[in-house]
Amino acid sequence: MFDLKLYLNEKSQIVNEALADILQNNQQDEIIDEAMRYSLMAGGKRIRPVLCLAAAETVGGNPADALTAACAMEMIHTYSLIHDDLPAMDNDELRRGKPTCHIAFDEATAVLAGDALLTLAFEVLASVPVNSSTRAAEWLQITRIIAVAAGSRGMIQGQMLDMAAEGRRLNLAELEAMHTLKTGALIEASLHCGALLARASRAQLAHLKSYARNIGLAFQVADDILNVAGNPEMMGKAVGTDRLNQKSTYPALLGLDASRQFARKLTHRALQALETFDSKAEPLRALATYIIERKR
Amino acid sequence: MFDLKLYLNEKSQIVNEALADILQNNQQDEIIDEAMRYSLMAGGKRIRPVLCLAAAETVGGNPADALTAACAMEMIHTYSLIHDDLPAMDNDELRRGKPTCHIAFDEATAVLAGDALLTLAFEVLASVPVNSSTRAAEWLQITRIIAVAAGSRGMIQGQMLDMAAEGRRLNLAELEAMHTLKTGALIEASLHCGALLARASRAQLAHLKSYARNIGLAFQVADDILNVAGNPEMMGKAVGTDRLNQKSTYPALLGLDASRQFARKLTHRALQALETFDSKAEPLRALATYIIERKR
Repeated sequence: MFDLKLYLNEKSQIVNEALADILQNNQQDEIIDEAMRYSLMAGGKRIRPVLCLAAAETVGGNPADALTAACAMEMIHTYSLIHDDLPAMDNDELRRGKPTCHIAFDEATAVLAGDALLTLAFEVLASVPVNSSTRAAEWLQITRIIAVAAGSRGMIQGQMLDMAAEGRRLNLAELEAMHTLKTGALIEASLHCGALLARASRAQLAHLKSYARNIGLAFQVADDILNVAGNPEMMGKAVGTDRLNQKSTYPALLGLDASRQFARKLTHRALQALETFDSKAEPLRALATYIIERKR
Repeated sequence: MFDLKLYLNEKSQIVNEALADILQNNQQDEIIDEAMRYSLMAGGKRIRPVLCLAAAETVGGNPADALTAACAMEMIHTYSLIHDDLPAMDNDELRRGKPTCHIAFDEATAVLAGDALLTLAFEVLASVPVNSSTRAAEWLQITRIIAVAAGSRGMIQGQMLDMAAEGRRLNLAELEAMHTLKTGALIEASLHCGALLARASRAQLAHLKSYARNIGLAFQVADDILNVAGNPEMMGKAVGTDRLNQKSTYPALLGLDASRQFARKLTHRALQALETFDSKAEPLRALATYIIERKR
């Protein structure tokens, strides 16, 4: 019986230590370093880096090879949260159970801390020791995949669609398109990079991308459900905010029951995409189920 | 007699065409693309990319090799301006003679357009075709140099110092430290990358870095002088704003005459650093003089 809790603890500890090292090497004891550390080490779930490491394991690679990419993913995810929380964007005051970066520091510092985490992610990717020629080309490719996923054809376009959706009701196709970009792009890139760094075959990559797309959307449906039916204390943030802000969500479009059913369907498809893999895919299988069953 | 105006026109046209191509390849006709194009193609002076190309030429290289790095520099410079102009930062409404990005679009779009240009800069660096193994490692190195210069130990720390300086008077050492990071870091990186991509020797790199540090600071002193004594119509932005905002500037600390003298001294040092180079350094020599004589 695979113990996901143990696995998540173990992997997120590895990620946390690597992130702490990155900040340590970068810091100069300035306010900007404090703000970066405040948000990056605020106890996020580390889903993206864990997916990256698990993808490497699934195809028989060493997850250590993917750790730098995993850390870059988490830095980019955190930067996007800092900017998303800004007054001009979602205007959120609570994140991961703590005041958001612009509340704990100030708005200018939050803008710059986000910028700095994004920049540091790319610095770290470009600083991987490359002892062989193929490795250098490989890290350029990883950098490109991450930049495309995070940029204006990926996550940022998703954020734009999210902003544009305020005050009007999206249909299901629009809602899916928004999430596929806003959260799906980074999740897919996390799995893609992990698998690529572990020398996945083309077929393996295709299966993992299908898995990624399904759990990425399932993750978002589950988030929407938690915002309706979750426990604010366990989540470390307010619930009911989507409805208050008239956000288009799966529960608002489908109702709560049909949303839960949809999340289960997506999880089922994600598991199907893993059928050709052996027991090394157990972490990814367990993660797919965890994503819709989590309480925060 | 070297014709700088012709040179600047020629090089900035090359840069503008390359930037337009980058945007063209990236765009999906969304608002985010419009906002990115609006700010990137607003007619900046292209000083950083031209310095990058001129550095490559100075050491006998082909400036075409440095064009991608030059474009990345300009995208990063533009992103920093967009974020600097935000209400939470400098709250500027005019830039390069046009409404700033958050005025022309909105604040959320400006935050995201800045993020997207920064991300696109790294995508472009990671997308250089690398046909040989050494080239891949070289582009990783270029990416690292640019990320360090743009990040929390470079430009972003300079922006933090600039914000912290509001309402209090810096001394000369603090003012220099702030500018060395805020504008100097990217200028130095522009020359560094251009020279490196043209296979500069260690000694050549050292000379070009000394040149960069001196013109970087001279550029800022000249900017401060223009804010006191410049023509707002020629500059496309308001003057007198530094004094209004009680900013620490060279004219405020030294007076206008001593500031002009200081700028000339820095230019002289920059020219000294170029003494070992032949006539291929003429563009850099002319640029050093232009920087303190420019009207915008």
